[in-house]
Amino acid sequence: MSIVVVGSVAFDSIETPRKRVERAIGGSATYFSLAASIFTRVRIVAVVGEDFGNDSRSILLSKDVDLEGLTEVKGGKTFFWEGRYGEDPNERETLVTELNVFEDFRPVLPGGYRRSRWVFLGNIDPEIQLEVLDQIEGKPFVGCDTMNFWIESKPSGLRKVLERVDILFINDSEARLLSGELNLIAAGESIIRLGPKAVVIKKGEHGAFLFAGDFRFFAPAYPLRDVTDPTGAGDSFAGGFMGYLAGVSSSDEPSLKRAMLYGTITASFCCEDYSIGRLMGVSKDDISARFGELVDLVNMP
Amino acid sequence: MSIVVVGSVAFDSIETPRKRVERAIGGSATYFSLAASIFTRVRIVAVVGEDFGNDSRSILLSKDVDLEGLTEVKGGKTFFWEGRYGEDPNERETLVTELNVFEDFRPVLPGGYRRSRWVFLGNIDPEIQLEVLDQIEGKPFVGCDTMNFWIESKPSGLRKVLERVDILFINDSEARLLSGELNLIAAGESIIRLGPKAVVIKKGEHGAFLFAGDFRFFAPAYPLRDVTDPTGAGDSFAGGFMGYLAGVSSSDEPSLKRAMLYGTITASFCCEDYSIGRLMGVSKDDISARFGELVDLVNMP
Repeated sequence: MSIVVVGSVAFDSIETPRKRVERAIGGSATYFSLAASIFTRVRIVAVVGEDFGNDSRSILLSKDVDLEGLTEVKGGKTFFWEGRYGEDPNERETLVTELNVFEDFRPVLPGGYRRSRWVFLGNIDPEIQLEVLDQIEGKPFVGCDTMNFWIESKPSGLRKVLERVDILFINDSEARLLSGELNLIAAGESIIRLGPKAVVIKKGEHGAFLFAGDFRFFAPAYPLRDVTDPTGAGDSFAGGFMGYLAGVSSSDEPSLKRAMLYGTITASFCCEDYSIGRLMGVSKDDISARFGELVDLVNMP
Repeated sequence: MSIVVVGSVAFDSIETPRKRVERAIGGSATYFSLAASIFTRVRIVAVVGEDFGNDSRSILLSKDVDLEGLTEVKGGKTFFWEGRYGEDPNERETLVTELNVFEDFRPVLPGGYRRSRWVFLGNIDPEIQLEVLDQIEGKPFVGCDTMNFWIESKPSGLRKVLERVDILFINDSEARLLSGELNLIAAGESIIRLGPKAVVIKKGEHGAFLFAGDFRFFAPAYPLRDVTDPTGAGDSFAGGFMGYLAGVSSSDEPSLKRAMLYGTITASFCCEDYSIGRLMGVSKDDISARFGELVDLVNMP
């Protein structure tokens, strides 16, 4: 089945010690869509400016992403982000954030999107995430992302969102902030009590932990010898994870465990080139090969 | 088969935000021995002062550790270490280090120890590790630990040790220092080229990575909700790992993978109480239960 994603589409300028990339397509919904499109049809809800252009549109269309929900604001400029990585790719500095048309983003789902059984709420204001949920008919499986900024500035809105989502994707420092627990196991258990049926705590190169009501699962990061550009890795994780579930139309325990590996794998490909470079060229065979490697990496003979 | 361990036996004073423990038995060889003794007979080579006493000796003897190689220096004082942990148990401050009799430690292996097929060189001067290897007859399976201090101060001695050991246990920051590689996968592959057949890179709460010539394996840390005192966790990991191999008398690929889990499990018990408190009470059933949990945590259904 198809999946609806609501989030940001942006232009990113990315600098690493080896290269600089100017105004490449980025944003949470873009990375999510490209990763999820490996597994299923994606319908994107986002806003761009008049500068977005057909080349950018073609990138999404080439992966069969449905753009009915992509609004273009005449005379507006697309969200722009510029960041710089250190020798250690975990060290990132944001140089420029220009929200532009994203500042007034109030997503309106096209009619055909509203009956979707699979929905992903990208990292946006919890109040807007709630508005999106209100537009959905029936009881879809909802994944959700958030960040430090919303945890601190919109705690009550975020609480309401968490009561209505099935799975939260969050990184380790955000999980500690949200739960008030220093220990990640305690943090995961505490977040489950806030409402979501499951939470994935992403630890970057240290893998990801899934806490569900009655089981836990750990996926190591795919062992990359070189990390070229980690921009979008977290969104690619969520995209691979949710896209796989929507594709097989299941959220049972075995599917969630497999989704952990697919999320890990799409995130690993994302890191192997600048911007969306590597994600664009990933084949089903590439995915299968890494799935086998990850299973071998941890499984007892 | 039994295993010989050469390292430090000490008294540790440990302070955490919740409790202070005075002059508890510690040291790398102590933690290693107690963890390894769960799986096999241990023969310890270490030095203590006249203050060591029968109570401390009884602790080791109660786990059937052979003390023929434990030298007591008359009039000498046992190695003493004092440290303090923060709310985050990864934050440790060393307050006092008194080497005492350990400063002049020149291990002499009793005759019966010299034909051991399993040897572990604790974290001591590489020159002394070489002296120990020269006392061994035949070709044992040798595990080895080291630390930043020796990597920086005795690089050539350490290189010679690495050419003669089967497996090196090292933490992530030490692996980066030894290899000059920031990326841990690159670091593991680089260290293998220095001589050891395998290297275990320990990442604390983030698990441990095994690099061998023709395979890699990752073990997640056992998910502990509370870490009471991590003192000795690394030595307990090596003890569980090497003790298991010696116990089954095998170092083939499946045994090394299982050893990764046993090391993980003994380290997890070590962290659950102050000093050696929890390690002393661990049963075979406790170990088996956590082995099953770890397998379930990562294995695909």
